Amino acid sequence: MSTDVVDAEVSPTGQLDILSKYEIHKLTDDSRGPQYELFRNCSLAVLNCGNYMDDGKELLEKYADFDISVIPTERGVKLKVSNAPASAFVDGKMIRGIAEHLFSVLRDIIYVNSEITDDPRYNLVSAQGVTDAVFHILRNADTFDRTRSPRLVVCWGGHSISREEYDYTKEVGYELALRHLDVCTGCGPGAMKGPMKGATIGHAKQRDRKGQYLGVTEPGIIAAESPNPIVNQLVIMPDIEKRLEAFVRTGHGIVVFPGGAGTAEEILYLLGILLHEENRHQPFPLIFTGPAGSADYFIRIDQFIANTLGEAARSRYQIIIDDPPEVARQMAAGIQKVREHRKETGDAYYFNWQLKVSTEFQRPFLPTHEQMRRLELHTNQAPYLLAANLRRAFSGIVSGNVKDRGIRNVEKNGPYELRGDPALMRSMDTLLNSFVKQQRMKLPGKEYVPCYRISEG
Amino acid sequence: MSTDVVDAEVSPTGQLDILSKYEIHKLTDDSRGPQYELFRNCSLAVLNCGNYMDDGKELLEKYADFDISVIPTERGVKLKVSNAPASAFVDGKMIRGIAEHLFSVLRDIIYVNSEITDDPRYNLVSAQGVTDAVFHILRNADTFDRTRSPRLVVCWGGHSISREEYDYTKEVGYELALRHLDVCTGCGPGAMKGPMKGATIGHAKQRDRKGQYLGVTEPGIIAAESPNPIVNQLVIMPDIEKRLEAFVRTGHGIVVFPGGAGTAEEILYLLGILLHEENRHQPFPLIFTGPAGSADYFIRIDQFIANTLGEAARSRYQIIIDDPPEVARQMAAGIQKVREHRKETGDAYYFNWQLKVSTEFQRPFLPTHEQMRRLELHTNQAPYLLAANLRRAFSGIVSGNVKDRGIRNVEKNGPYELRGDPALMRSMDTLLNSFVKQQRMKLPGKEYVPCYRISEG
Amino acid sequence: MSTDVVDAEVSPTGQLDILSKYEIHKLTDDSRGPQYELFRNCSLAVLNCGNYMDDGKELLEKYADFDISVIPTERGVKLKVSNAPASAFVDGKMIRGIAEHLFSVLRDIIYVNSEITDDPRYNLVSAQGVTDAVFHILRNADTFDRTRSPRLVVCWGGHSISREEYDYTKEVGYELALRHLDVCTGCGPGAMKGPMKGATIGHAKQRDRKGQYLGVTEPGIIAAESPNPIVNQLVIMPDIEKRLEAFVRTGHGIVVFPGGAGTAEEILYLLGILLHEENRHQPFPLIFTGPAGSADYFIRIDQFIANTLGEAARSRYQIIIDDPPEVARQMAAGIQKVREHRKETGDAYYFNWQLKVSTEFQRPFLPTHEQMRRLELHTNQAPYLLAANLRRAFSGIVSGNVKDRGIRNVEKNGPYELRGDPALMRSMDTLLNSFVKQQRMKLPGKEYVPCYRISEG
Amino acid sequence: MSTDVVDAEVSPTGQLDILSKYEIHKLTDDSRGPQYELFRNCSLAVLNCGNYMDDGKELLEKYADFDISVIPTERGVKLKVSNAPASAFVDGKMIRGIAEHLFSVLRDIIYVNSEITDDPRYNLVSAQGVTDAVFHILRNADTFDRTRSPRLVVCWGGHSISREEYDYTKEVGYELALRHLDVCTGCGPGAMKGPMKGATIGHAKQRDRKGQYLGVTEPGIIAAESPNPIVNQLVIMPDIEKRLEAFVRTGHGIVVFPGGAGTAEEILYLLGILLHEENRHQPFPLIFTGPAGSADYFIRIDQFIANTLGEAARSRYQIIIDDPPEVARQMAAGIQKVREHRKETGDAYYFNWQLKVSTEFQRPFLPTHEQMRRLELHTNQAPYLLAANLRRAFSGIVSGNVKDRGIRNVEKNGPYELRGDPALMRSMDTLLNSFVKQQRMKLPGKEYVPCYRISEG
Repeated sequence: MSTDVVDAEVSPTGQLDILSKYEIHKLTDDSRGPQYELFRNCSLAVLNCGNYMDDGKELLEKYADFDISVIPTERGVKLKVSNAPASAFVDGKMIRGIAEHLFSVLRDIIYVNSEITDDPRYNLVSAQGVTDAVFHILRNADTFDRTRSPRLVVCWGGHSISREEYDYTKEVGYELALRHLDVCTGCGPGAMKGPMKGATIGHAKQRDRKGQYLGVTEPGIIAAESPNPIVNQLVIMPDIEKRLEAFVRTGHGIVVFPGGAGTAEEILYLLGILLHEENRHQPFPLIFTGPAGSADYFIRIDQFIANTLGEAARSRYQIIIDDPPEVARQMAAGIQKVREHRKETGDAYYFNWQLKVSTEFQRPFLPTHEQMRRLELHTNQAPYLLAANLRRAFSGIVSGNVKDRGIRNVEKNGPYELRGDPALMRSMDTLLNSFVKQQRMKLPGKEYVPCYRISEG
Repeated sequence: MSTDVVDAEVSPTGQLDILSKYEIHKLTDDSRGPQYELFRNCSLAVLNCGNYMDDGKELLEKYADFDISVIPTERGVKLKVSNAPASAFVDGKMIRGIAEHLFSVLRDIIYVNSEITDDPRYNLVSAQGVTDAVFHILRNADTFDRTRSPRLVVCWGGHSISREEYDYTKEVGYELALRHLDVCTGCGPGAMKGPMKGATIGHAKQRDRKGQYLGVTEPGIIAAESPNPIVNQLVIMPDIEKRLEAFVRTGHGIVVFPGGAGTAEEILYLLGILLHEENRHQPFPLIFTGPAGSADYFIRIDQFIANTLGEAARSRYQIIIDDPPEVARQMAAGIQKVREHRKETGDAYYFNWQLKVSTEFQRPFLPTHEQMRRLELHTNQAPYLLAANLRRAFSGIVSGNVKDRGIRNVEKNGPYELRGDPALMRSMDTLLNSFVKQQRMKLPGKEYVPCYRISEG
Repeated sequence: MSTDVVDAEVSPTGQLDILSKYEIHKLTDDSRGPQYELFRNCSLAVLNCGNYMDDGKELLEKYADFDISVIPTERGVKLKVSNAPASAFVDGKMIRGIAEHLFSVLRDIIYVNSEITDDPRYNLVSAQGVTDAVFHILRNADTFDRTRSPRLVVCWGGHSISREEYDYTKEVGYELALRHLDVCTGCGPGAMKGPMKGATIGHAKQRDRKGQYLGVTEPGIIAAESPNPIVNQLVIMPDIEKRLEAFVRTGHGIVVFPGGAGTAEEILYLLGILLHEENRHQPFPLIFTGPAGSADYFIRIDQFIANTLGEAARSRYQIIIDDPPEVARQMAAGIQKVREHRKETGDAYYFNWQLKVSTEFQRPFLPTHEQMRRLELHTNQAPYLLAANLRRAFSGIVSGNVKDRGIRNVEKNGPYELRGDPALMRSMDTLLNSFVKQQRMKLPGKEYVPCYRISEG
Repeated sequence: MSTDVVDAEVSPTGQLDILSKYEIHKLTDDSRGPQYELFRNCSLAVLNCGNYMDDGKELLEKYADFDISVIPTERGVKLKVSNAPASAFVDGKMIRGIAEHLFSVLRDIIYVNSEITDDPRYNLVSAQGVTDAVFHILRNADTFDRTRSPRLVVCWGGHSISREEYDYTKEVGYELALRHLDVCTGCGPGAMKGPMKGATIGHAKQRDRKGQYLGVTEPGIIAAESPNPIVNQLVIMPDIEKRLEAFVRTGHGIVVFPGGAGTAEEILYLLGILLHEENRHQPFPLIFTGPAGSADYFIRIDQFIANTLGEAARSRYQIIIDDPPEVARQMAAGIQKVREHRKETGDAYYFNWQLKVSTEFQRPFLPTHEQMRRLELHTNQAPYLLAANLRRAFSGIVSGNVKDRGIRNVEKNGPYELRGDPALMRSMDTLLNSFVKQQRMKLPGKEYVPCYRISEG
């Protein structure tokens, strides 16, 4: 089947546009090295924006002939693409927002990663080292603004949600923006796109011309969740753990919409952190919300948390059903407290240095069958550690569902096996079954084949 | 039935904010004078944005207790509203875009009108005098930017269109904005809103942060076509003729979407002008467009024009069906020619001084039963004069359909009578019947009772 | 003697650049009417900047062939100058700041004046009407900024001062700017130029990029006090009284440097206003200052005030000798009080509406021999009225010294005669003699021939 | 003698204001390390601005108690100064421009230098490595603007010049700015300050609000040439060779005013580069200029160049005496050619990558008595190499005259000895004697004791 494709050259706009000879050569060389495939695939995802596919494999197969290369010029670099999706162009010229995203990919995959891995400063084993790396990547992407009040709301939720849920996320984004709040998401479709679209209208109504639309993604997820064009700051973190840390350190509050396993992973990650002793006094507004028809999702999650992490965890969030203005009001009030806390303690508004993120939440988890089987899924540990392990379990399931590597893994070796306390495993089974029943594991219309198997013991 | 209402005081933001004592007193006095009702009703329409109603009467009845007054302060004025629609407020504070629109109403209804009527400079009988008044009102609303290239596309079309048509207008707006064009409309719902919404996304994708969203309305139409909040420059012209002149002198090209009688009126107005001998060499891109399912509308219009105004008129427009990118490409190319023409002749980019608009198209037409009956509807006159008379006929029908005054008129005296050449009247009857059949006379769901009667002879 | 001259055409930059056809024709016509000579002479003064001459006559004679005309174009106007001073041009192109001043002249002499005299709104007989006119002219010149804190210091003083005094005014301007204060002067040489030059350096050091350098002049004075190019807002008021009112209503405090009769006039004007009952509670910082060597000037003035207006007048000013930082500190502290007062009373920051300026200080004084002779110079009146009359006496002397009309007057009819109370007249004589002795009546190097004669009467 | 001093804490403004924990600790540590003294002394020089002293020793002795330290805070760093010169403060608050300069010192002495020396990327032995380092330091100081046309004129000349010469440099700066050119200097007094002061007025007259005033200094020179406050971008290069390379790669043309040995050094440096085969086709406007009374300086230099480097060298510069407008016109014309050349070859406007600077001009020259004695001062080498050696000879003399280290060196070991071809040495002696006679070796008023001895052979 022939596909509509375009060849073009693109110059940088505002980043990587003033380079030294050394940098030009290094960028050109690095882009041809071992990172090439990652760079190519992320670039393709960015160019494919607006044409959603459920898994990365489809995209890669459709544009098998796509190629991208870094071209050195007298004073910088250009990107040369061939067989690129035609939808990224207008009358032969690349849409500027997409060109910006493309250079964000170059910056974060080739430039930053080489900067960080080659640089002895970043001790990626220590918690502080990881946090410094997260900070460095975000700063290098120019996402920090010293003059901005706390106003960034992270929105989490599924990329595959119903029309009703999607419209609801738009409403919430709209109401947040009417209260001069900004939006950060994982920058894919569904709950990652809706709040930004709604906020665009809300900011326009309030003549708030400097709305921040921050998209934080990572290479393994970008193909399935191609960044939407409203995102005016795109950052590709090296792995899912640094992406999560970026969310919790730059966001001033978090709204969680209905999703699936990925959303559960995010919730467990955040609760695990907030349960840490040192974070007890950190104000951190956290709201779970959805339309009336989706109340069940949060009822299930709430029960699962009650059964596993207990009341201390439950006290860190509110559930608000079917009331976007109330969500926005509560979030604005919560962020006001964050602002006061930062002011009192002298912490930065643009990065939450004080939040304790222990290494359990930083260390990348590579979901092999072996790793999944060995997860410690029992209540005989500090709640924050249990949260960390549960988070890993859900991370593996997300990988088996939508990530290229995970899908191939499961195709080859069969479903992941998860073992643990019987009561805990039953809670987990109940929750996952509810996700399947609610069609939250894949885009609707395809039957879901579980990528996991629950074993008690 | 109780309605959700709010009382509040609002300060000006960027206009009418530096006033002399004299101006403060004059504004306060004038706002209490004979213009009060007009001022109040337009303000109500602005505050009601987002809650569309088909005719002005409904709105006025729903908010019968609404009141607005100008409050003098030590250094300027405030507006005090009571029993205002709650949807204009967020947590008790008026949405800034709506507040801006409210002050546009004050500026254009009270301030400008008094400036113009009291000022001997504006000889509103001469063509030049009217054009100067139109210019003055637009300049006073700060819509001119000397540094801006020609890029303003006026979009005309119905406020009551199908979902398919509405989505199509969004697509066209989106494609225009991808080509760095701006949008001007009559600033109501339907075809007046869709292109602006689409353009918002297109400009965002192209990082075009200074998109102009110009809304040009007039008091008689504003209630039925409450300005949408994306409009970042709202101008209320004194009457429908000056509004039309504002469109053709500030726009660099015009796209016409399917509409009803109002859209036909606008087409006839513009063709009448372009048919004038002195405008023969004026480049003026004009495109009629709609989705495949709406092709019939333009086929009918095209036939009607062929039958009445002839081939010279047909040569001034293109019809493009179901192809938004092509519409945008043709418009961009046409505007490029406008730019060259203005450059060659030294004319301003922001105002088309050279376009000849004869007094037939400027003189307000007040559609009484008497006036309607006496329209000269025959082919025994210059085509541009025939266009002027046909325009008036459609203007009267619009009034009888949606304007407060017209509706009351027809309620009292029965349908307007239109007389003329048999062939011409048959063409007209055919066209109007096709509008009724296509449900283009009122919001769908209500049965249409014609406000006119066609008589041959 | 041949003079270096240039012919050129200049387009407007930022003002008078978006005009209607009516305005274009009116401007062109008006510029050829009775105002032409005034317009020409002021334009010549602006173009002559940097080449100071002591009286207007010299300038007019040197450039007798200079001509300026308004040229209508398709969308606006140009100015055409011939035989203009070459110093206004760089490689044949007019220096932009001078071009701006030239259009300020056009705006204020031709456009504004016609607006005001033709407009029945401006009742120039009433105090409120005059104040409204002053406000209108300043607003039309775009000098008001609603977002600016009170920070404008008016600097008065002689145009013909010693190098030591001039350097001192620079020091004061520098210290004011270091404290984020702006400068407004009569925009000529000497004490009108020094503070602006100093402030330029001070603002640069403080990275204060939006310094306001407001020059307020009037047609009769502009030739002798050609605006210096640092002035970034130039306003030509219609007469000396409106110029003085502009100073006291826009400035937040006033510094007076040594000068001559003109400076004495300004001091008397301001004290006269501050002595009015209704202004008793108005905070208005007023500082007389100069280098050590010029202390005598203020000692004489202080004695004169003590002898004539008394202690109430003396309590309104401080004298600070040879201490620029202290001047700036006191002024900053005084303006802080002005800010608080305006905030409490809700008055604008950009215009002091509350200051009572009675008609005695508004009515233009045309110093004929007859008028001068009839001035009421005795202590048998309210101090504020005595101040008004003394002000007029000094105004006449200034005119006889440096204004074209006054010089011709005195050349023809001999010196003006001043009559009054013996004690008062002796005080006046003492003061004027001290001015002559200090060489404060004309540029040094020419012998001064008094234009007045004191008679006790 | 007691000195007026102040203690204070200062926060960063626009640089080093968003730091990671790692950077905060590194900065704090590094500032206490071996670089401390350098950091302290440069900071003191910056704070002492406006109070010129002829050599660094005086300054260090006067403020022997001065101390500065980096204070880590929750989200960044502050600088704490004690016993700092009071002239840097206004009412206890540090002048913002000086605070910016202070953070430039921190950035360039502590942060950048550690970045560069610790980073294996910078191979400071290779020519390309040095150029990359120069580029990196300038980019890190935010001096590059991709959108700016070529307009930066480097002005060289003495810090110790006559009033007449100083006024002349102001005139030239003024005329350059009238033609929309910017100024870069070594940012000390004399010829380094005059052009900036003049340009400030010129830019103000042309309403050119974005004038660039780039100061490029180095630690050894900063104390004697404290940066003046008009400098709005201050960069401290690690050594004199990188400073010179920064001048020739960022400047689009160079004006040389009268100076002394330092100016001769700069001329020889630049001619040496321009004489290189690979630079033959590089347009590079170079103008020597001064007032009529200083013509002799350039006559001597011109003769010396004729005698040593020959006609090829002479063809690269123009000498223009006593004509500032002509200097500016020629420079503007020359820069127009630079612009065309960069455009044709695709080179950056903000950095001249194409200029060949061979290692002879990059390698730091440490003028010990041994090194000075061994310089190859004969004509039996390529002219560009001879230029390099002559440059080093003058560099040593500058060091012995005004640099702390050099002064101590000569105090200890007697004058430097220079040996070479008799004819060459005579030329050199003649030139140096003319400098002494013209009082160009030290600030006037002190008798000059030569720090060198010329030996033929």
